Formats: sequence, structure tokens, C-alpha cells
Amino acid sequence: MTGGPLEGVRVIDLTTVVVGPICTRTLGDQGAEVIKVEAPGGDILRYLAAGSRSPAMSGKFINFNRNKRSIVLDIKQAEGLAALKRLIAGADVFVSNVRPAALARAGLDHASLAPANPRLIHCGIVAFGTEGRYAGRPAYDPVIQSLSGVAGTFERATGEPRFVPMVMTDHITGLVAAQSIGFALFRREKTGQGEAIEVPMFETMASFVTSEHLGAATFDPPEGPSGDARLLSPDYRPLPTSDGFITIRPNDNRQAFAFFDAIGQPELKADPRFATPISRTEHAADYFTIQVEALARRSTAEWLEIFAAADVPAARYNSIDDLLDDPHLGDVGFWQADEHPTEGRIRRTRTPVTFRGGMREEVLPAPRLGAHTRAILAEAGYAPAEIEAMLQSGAAA
Amino acid sequence: MTGGPLEGVRVIDLTTVVVGPICTRTLGDQGAEVIKVEAPGGDILRYLAAGSRSPAMSGKFINFNRNKRSIVLDIKQAEGLAALKRLIAGADVFVSNVRPAALARAGLDHASLAPANPRLIHCGIVAFGTEGRYAGRPAYDPVIQSLSGVAGTFERATGEPRFVPMVMTDHITGLVAAQSIGFALFRREKTGQGEAIEVPMFETMASFVTSEHLGAATFDPPEGPSGDARLLSPDYRPLPTSDGFITIRPNDNRQAFAFFDAIGQPELKADPRFATPISRTEHAADYFTIQVEALARRSTAEWLEIFAAADVPAARYNSIDDLLDDPHLGDVGFWQADEHPTEGRIRRTRTPVTFRGGMREEVLPAPRLGAHTRAILAEAGYAPAEIEAMLQSGAAA
Repeated sequence: MTGGPLEGVRVIDLTTVVVGPICTRTLGDQGAEVIKVEAPGGDILRYLAAGSRSPAMSGKFINFNRNKRSIVLDIKQAEGLAALKRLIAGADVFVSNVRPAALARAGLDHASLAPANPRLIHCGIVAFGTEGRYAGRPAYDPVIQSLSGVAGTFERATGEPRFVPMVMTDHITGLVAAQSIGFALFRREKTGQGEAIEVPMFETMASFVTSEHLGAATFDPPEGPSGDARLLSPDYRPLPTSDGFITIRPNDNRQAFAFFDAIGQPELKADPRFATPISRTEHAADYFTIQVEALARRSTAEWLEIFAAADVPAARYNSIDDLLDDPHLGDVGFWQADEHPTEGRIRRTRTPVTFRGGMREEVLPAPRLGAHTRAILAEAGYAPAEIEAMLQSGAAA
Repeated sequence: MTGGPLEGVRVIDLTTVVVGPICTRTLGDQGAEVIKVEAPGGDILRYLAAGSRSPAMSGKFINFNRNKRSIVLDIKQAEGLAALKRLIAGADVFVSNVRPAALARAGLDHASLAPANPRLIHCGIVAFGTEGRYAGRPAYDPVIQSLSGVAGTFERATGEPRFVPMVMTDHITGLVAAQSIGFALFRREKTGQGEAIEVPMFETMASFVTSEHLGAATFDPPEGPSGDARLLSPDYRPLPTSDGFITIRPNDNRQAFAFFDAIGQPELKADPRFATPISRTEHAADYFTIQVEALARRSTAEWLEIFAAADVPAARYNSIDDLLDDPHLGDVGFWQADEHPTEGRIRRTRTPVTFRGGMREEVLPAPRLGAHTRAILAEAGYAPAEIEAMLQSGAAA
């Protein structure tokens, strides 16, 4: 028993890279038992990212694959495919990020699997919804960032389209897939019926972007240009201090006036450009210039102390590496020091969400490729001799 | 009956702006009945974003608040607070993004609410986990982008920290909150017990960023610098063509060699710098320069046709406005033309995830402030005279 809200849920995970693995890691973090099915070469994320102590165990792979066990099956061989189907027949959830046509050819679509397991929930993560013309096309995260308007938000802000330097559309879609599986598990408790879920990356991200930025174009005909102008300013960024950066957000009148006092320019409180939220929005460029000029005069630490005393919303800026030493993250035990059985001492992040009703207790280390092949086959009812034969033939590894 | 996996789930929503409303919209989209409880002034998102046809009904508010009904209660008045507690006593889920101390003072924390409703799931969305030193501080999305390393990814990529031009940390945390509620609902079906969930924005986003970018610093001591270098290049962006932009991703050897053929430089296939994925990574700057020079020679449409024929992953770049005309989104019915009862014709996005087991059927339009105050109070058992008295006193509106 794992603890956690998804205790007792068995997940067969036929996914690679990020979009699927963050979905199934989330399920595992919350108590599900996750079996990661890998092709003989293994999930490409094992190799893609730099930084590892042994082959096929990159840091990025480790971070996206804790709380899973690994079985290697060659599903191009009949016996490997049969083993996968036997695993799925005993599972609650099957997650794939394989193209639907290939899945159907292998008999791994929901319609083919449901007769043996009517309670099965299949979650198919796809690049594009199967009813549109892009269906079946390959997609990488930047392709979806390019199509879905993520890069477009930067063009509006700075004049040049850019990608967010994360595989953000994979990551968000994977979180939505885990969310959808939770909803389906809830319904299954009441109806006893499994089902098929389709989670398309493009549509998911187009919904994400347009919920934020459809704006006045929500109306037909539009009431003005699309986009939330507050977010599309070229100046929407941490601002330089004398020794680093700071983020401030003096929004309402109290905060704005406290800010003017704190920077020693109380006369601005009487300036009609800055008297109300609306006038500050109309004179956003001037308001911004005042911030830039003032903040450059002191260090980040000095400003943080001054703004804390004045109750002006302000925060330090953390580089990626600064997160390792952030004092709040230290307080909440965000960084856990794990001893990985083969990779040595690693940093693991705590599950950020807490459930008062009980959390997963034991954390499984990210698995070496095929580390649990024998054990999982045995649990599925394969006899020792059958397992040896599969290992000999390469149907398992 | 709404249809959808969360049919029959009743949600009381005491949230504003984005982080809470996207959580409860997600629950509503999937079939939950959501009651949005607003203070007399209403959710500030009604006013914040530009573009509306009538006051307090901005496009952005409409997009984040479909499938909800609105009741106005002044919970600073005893009768308003009592009405909220009566609603929560009859609900499955209570979602708040109020600071925990204020919630407890009003008796709206889980411990105070559970005696009247032991099956209640309370999801408290907070800026910072309650056990750390930043607990209780106010946070706006840019504060979390600044602290959590989101802005830090841009410093690594371009030398300058930036925010993603969306309220991305609100948006993602809200999706994670909805996910967590689904998991808790599943467990409650089995145990009968409610619970309290805490979803902190900072920790959620620090986990998001470091899962991607801890990299070689996953190991202690680190095996190299943090960060996934593939994503942190200044050139990680859509590339200019002769008339716009295009995104290409020739990753494996077949794709890379097909790309060299397609641009009329087949000799590069024999160039040792580009012979393998590893050598192309080592010579990423050169590989990039070749792409930039080639792509500028033709139009986006020409390149898309050429790369489609050569099976090189490539995609158009969509500005925010281009999404309105994207052909795939048209095929899948992404844009729905709704007639809002008071705001006229609007564009609504379809729920991107599909559940074969049944979807929500009727879509509720985003509510006017307090549109359902009388109806919801009546459903909660208030007599007509009591309702009139509350409206007179301003406890309801």
C-alpha cells in the first residue's frame, strides 16, 4: 500500500520524453502504482539531456520518472505485445502517447482492449485531435508552442516570437492528462465503466493561450484587439537593482502611494498621471520609467527591506540555481536528499500539493532500464521458464 | 444533470482572478455544478482586462467563468457569512484562494467546516505553503514567476530575465488544483471521508521549473551545470522565412538528412559536424546558422510544402489572432459561436479534452454579477421573506 489518494490504482505507462512521463509521475506521486513499459532502447529522455552519472540515467529522466517501475518489452514481437496486453488487462489505467493509427494497428486502442477489461480507462495523449487535419502529424514541444500562440504572446510583447525555454506544452498537457484520468477514475467508481480519453496538445494549449488573450476578440464582432495588454508590455519583467533584480507589483492606490513614499518621491502621489489605477494604466510607460530609475539606486536586499516595511508587494528574483538555496523552499522541505540505489545522492523535489487525507509514503527511485522486467512478468502470472524464454528471444529485456 | 465525469459534484467557489477561476471552470466544464460566490464588488477580473460590451463583463472574465452561476454575499456581515456556510454544508467541494489566516478567522477553514459536512473536500489555493516563511504574503503572478525560476529560464536563454506574457503560474496552479480535487473525489468515493488540500503556487511552479531544468544539478554534488541546454539557446524560437516565420525540428538523422536535401545542400549529410544527433548537438550553433540562412530564402507556404513532402517536422507560426482561423482548430470545432444572453455573440473555446464516457452537454454562459443570488438562496432553503431581508440589508445582492 502506497498511501496517497490514488492508492490501489494500477497504471500501465507507454509514454516517453515529457508529456506522458509527467502525467504518470503525477499519478505515481499521488499513490498510483505505475509500470513504465519501455522499448528495448529505453525512453529517449534517458539520453537526451546532459548530466548523468551512468548511461541512460540523465538527471532530467530521473526527475520525471520517480515512483515508477520499468519493464522492457519489444512490442514488435508477438510475445512482447501479448505481455503488454496482459499487463493492461489487469490495470485500471493505460496511458499512451503513441499515434492513434499505430496504437490501433497493434490492438492497443480502447475498443480492442475493453472486452478484456471493461473498467479500463485509456488516456491517449496526442499532438492533435483525431478529428482535425493535423491528426497523426508528429509534434515536438516547439511545434506546439509555435502553433498554439505561446510564441505569439512574445511577438506581441517584444516584436519577436519566442519559445518559453521549457517543454511547457508537453508539461502542461501531461498535467491535464493526469487531471482527466482523476476525473475518469471518479466517474468509474460510480458507474463501473471504463472509457477512452483523448488529450490533444494543440487544442489544450490553444485553450490555455486564448483563455488568457482572446480578450476583446471574445466578442464577435470584436470590441477591440485581442490580448491582455497588462501582460503584453515589453517591460513585463524583473527590473534591475544596483546588484541584481527585483519584482515589484504596486497595483492599488495604497500600494502605489506607499511605493512613491518608499522611493522618496512623495510628490508623485499628487500627480494626476498616477492618482488612480486607471490613470496609472493610461500612463503605464511613465509609471514604469519611474520604477526603473528608482530601483537602480539601491541593492535588492535594501529594496526588499524597504518594501516589506511599506507593505509594497515585492519579491526577489531567483535564477534556476538560486532555487536550491531559497529560504522558503528550505522551510517546507522542498528539497529532499535521496540516496538513489545506483546513481548515488540526488536532490528530489517534494510533491508540492498536500492532501490532509494521506500522502504517498514510500518514494520509488527512478528505475534503471528494465530493472523490474522479471518481477512484473512474474506478478502477471508468467512462469519462470516463460520469463527466461522471453528474455532469450528479446521479447523482454 | 449536466453530463460529464464530474456530474453531480457541487462546488462552492470563493476565488477570484485566474488561479481559482480556471480551477473551477475546469470542474464545471467536466460536469460539476459550480456556484461562484462573489463579494458585492464582484471578481476584479470582471473589470481588470480591457474589452467588454457592458460593465463588469470583460472578455477575459467571460472566458474563465463559463459553467458557473454567481451569487453575491457580503461575508463581512453575519448573515452573508452564514449563508456561505450553509452553501458549503451542502457541497462536495469548497475552493478558496483566500489567505489561510483570514479563512480561519471567518470559520471557513476545513477544521471548522468539517463537523457540519465530513465529506467536504476543501481545496485551499495559496501563494506559499503555510509551513514556510513566505506564508501569508500576497502574491501576484509575476511575483511567482520571479521567485520560481520561470523568469530565470529566460536569463539563461537570453541574458535577461523575463516573464512569460501570460498569468502562467496562476493558470498552471489552477489546473493542478482541479487535478488534486479529482484525486480527492476519487478517494472519497472509497473512504467516504472528505479532506483538506493545499496547493501552493510557489512550490508548484518551483517543481515545474526544476523538473525541467535541474539537469546535472539533480546530482549532489552536481555532475555539471543545471539547465537543459537544448531549451536554453537564444535561438530557441520560430525562425524567419521570406514572409513570416516557421518552426522546424529536424531531430533524428533521417529528419536532418531530409532537411539538408530539402534546402539543396545534400553535401552536409557527409559533414562530420552533422552526422549524428550528438555531433549536431555539439555543433548546434552551426546547425542553427544553416537553418536560418536557408529558411530566409523561401516563403513559409513554400517551405511547409517542401518539408511536408520530405517528412521533416515543421509547423506554421500562429499569432494570437491567427488562432481564430487555424484550419485544424476549425475542423475540430474548437471555436463555438455562442449567443450570450446579455453580451451577445461571443466566441467560446470547446473543452479540449474528450471523454468517450460522456461530456457536459449544456454550457452555462458566464454569469452577470449576482445573477443567481435569489435562486441559489432559495435552493439552500431560504424562504422568500428571508431572501428579501438579506437583499435589503446588503448581506446578499
